[in-house]
Amino acid sequence: MKNLLEGIEDVLLLGPGPSCVPQEVYDALSCKTLGHLDPYFMTIMDGIREMLKQVLKTENALTVPMSGTGSAGMEACFVNLIEPGDKVLILINGVFGMRMSDVAARLGANVDILEFAWGTPVLPEAVEKKIRENAYRIVAVVHAETSTGVMNPVAEIGKLFKGSGTLYLVDTVTSLGGIDVRMDDWGIDALYSGTQKCLSCPPGLAPLSFSERAVAKLNGRKTKVPNWYLDLSLIANYWGAKRVYHHTAPVNMLYGLYQALALLLEEGLEKAFQRHRKNHLALVGGLKELGMEMLVEEPWRLPMLNTVLIPADVDELSIRKRLRSEFRIEIGAGLGPLAGKIWRIGLMGHSSRQESVSRLLAALKILLPTT
Amino acid sequence: MKNLLEGIEDVLLLGPGPSCVPQEVYDALSCKTLGHLDPYFMTIMDGIREMLKQVLKTENALTVPMSGTGSAGMEACFVNLIEPGDKVLILINGVFGMRMSDVAARLGANVDILEFAWGTPVLPEAVEKKIRENAYRIVAVVHAETSTGVMNPVAEIGKLFKGSGTLYLVDTVTSLGGIDVRMDDWGIDALYSGTQKCLSCPPGLAPLSFSERAVAKLNGRKTKVPNWYLDLSLIANYWGAKRVYHHTAPVNMLYGLYQALALLLEEGLEKAFQRHRKNHLALVGGLKELGMEMLVEEPWRLPMLNTVLIPADVDELSIRKRLRSEFRIEIGAGLGPLAGKIWRIGLMGHSSRQESVSRLLAALKILLPTT
Repeated sequence: MKNLLEGIEDVLLLGPGPSCVPQEVYDALSCKTLGHLDPYFMTIMDGIREMLKQVLKTENALTVPMSGTGSAGMEACFVNLIEPGDKVLILINGVFGMRMSDVAARLGANVDILEFAWGTPVLPEAVEKKIRENAYRIVAVVHAETSTGVMNPVAEIGKLFKGSGTLYLVDTVTSLGGIDVRMDDWGIDALYSGTQKCLSCPPGLAPLSFSERAVAKLNGRKTKVPNWYLDLSLIANYWGAKRVYHHTAPVNMLYGLYQALALLLEEGLEKAFQRHRKNHLALVGGLKELGMEMLVEEPWRLPMLNTVLIPADVDELSIRKRLRSEFRIEIGAGLGPLAGKIWRIGLMGHSSRQESVSRLLAALKILLPTT
Repeated sequence: MKNLLEGIEDVLLLGPGPSCVPQEVYDALSCKTLGHLDPYFMTIMDGIREMLKQVLKTENALTVPMSGTGSAGMEACFVNLIEPGDKVLILINGVFGMRMSDVAARLGANVDILEFAWGTPVLPEAVEKKIRENAYRIVAVVHAETSTGVMNPVAEIGKLFKGSGTLYLVDTVTSLGGIDVRMDDWGIDALYSGTQKCLSCPPGLAPLSFSERAVAKLNGRKTKVPNWYLDLSLIANYWGAKRVYHHTAPVNMLYGLYQALALLLEEGLEKAFQRHRKNHLALVGGLKELGMEMLVEEPWRLPMLNTVLIPADVDELSIRKRLRSEFRIEIGAGLGPLAGKIWRIGLMGHSSRQESVSRLLAALKILLPTT
């Protein structure tokens, strides 16, 4: 039988994730597997946790990579914190806010939503009004809305919950490693992310962190977490000093994350943010020269996820297919109401390079109809 | 900062999993990452599904690797099938049966358990009596109980549910690839496994398969699956013809699974089972020569997970530590009531080799006190 792996091409990944992976991370993935209770593997786990705390700018003891992709991180945050009937407010301006609301409702939360037009940010003043009218146990928002390319004002929203009993839950799947994330300074109580965006590691793990307030809510539950696999009270005992076996950790994926975090910290967070910003500006400038406009107003544009309006005369699917087949470049389609209207161009982590921008622009110049 | 990955040793993994990984699978893990909606990646997904069906001996259309470790497979089977109040019977003779009962109870099932002494198998006649007294929506059992080394009579138990409305759920985490698993012939409706045992792939994925009856129960639910991440009605649309985006699949881990399944089918399932049996017999013979006895009676012994009684004069922890530090061999400790009483010696997948047996026996000969 033909081995399909031999046919895998080296594709420039400029979609909404996964992003390109540096060779060092590929090498890490194929280090020899150790047991999940091996003493040396424990030192690697400790290293991952310490680096994650640096990247998240948090002192939270409960900082772990969950054994699933970014959406498992979302599921984990909600399933550990929600008890049936809890009042939860979800701020929605794209697919991932909607997903949060679906996840929370399935878990028996009493969900309110506050919606904003796709392509525009969440407005803190609207949130302030809403929380004056109702007391919420949890308010949740997406930092970088991958479906629209909008950056939400996570720091400003966080200020609204100071001194209240509300837990603040933030999705940083696409933002982490590409723009600043300050978990402690911004008053975030529960945060999850993914490895396959600006951390430049293949998909498979979801970094997660809980503040002391979030841990108190978890420990004060009247009922067991209705999800054994993602129960953080058990997982904390494996990642903590006790090292109690819970499930068999995804050892090789954790090697990859270790290496990816080490590379990011070696470059330096600020330098990585600047790199994302610089390549974003170059892309936006180049797209403008090709006569294309961005979906999102300048102040709210994400540097790592660029949403560009597709000109009326363009067959978007045909161009995406040709980018992949003729130029070995992947870009992303629009989702939901934005399907057919935008492309999503990721410049995330190792994909955020000058040559990514120039290769894509050169290809688009050839493929787009001349006017 | 020191890169801890450089210090990873090549350990002979003879614990209860993960097992040793062939070089081809390591190479597969580090193939270039493709997008999770990439057309070529879709062909790899199709290849994985077809090979999984062969290994499971099933025609089930809903046969997929879940994006989590083996325990995520357990969680997925129960969360998709259980609706609150459903009567569920769990057959327990070790840690993993107990875990099933915990998982099911958290999901609101009305759980009955039927217990058997650890180290002995589930008795079909006792199950038959129990199901005559009560009607169950689901009966669940572990094929290869990794905590005790016992093989449960899964085929015989399955016959009891023929023509009934009971769904039969089986854990094949440790058995798959090492002993025969015949999903369709044995009337199994829901099955999950793990990659890090006899499939010789690092931990991180959970093969899962649902019969048409199980799919009917899923589709007939009155409420949404209370776990978005593991909702098989959504995941089926990603793995099926529609290719609807659900979550970002763990692309590189799936490359590893593809390669691991290809290697297993290349060897041939029957040959793999014979290899496991042969090396098991060699190990048992060698342990006997060293004066050690097995926990489990001969007919119920698992070939891939060997539980041996620790002689009274032996400091078990010290020997396990020396095996790891001086001989680079990992073996497993006992769990629960068997802690300190047994070792668990895995000969799973790529670890089931003649040289594994001889290297371990030679080391034990040096380390065990002479009488």
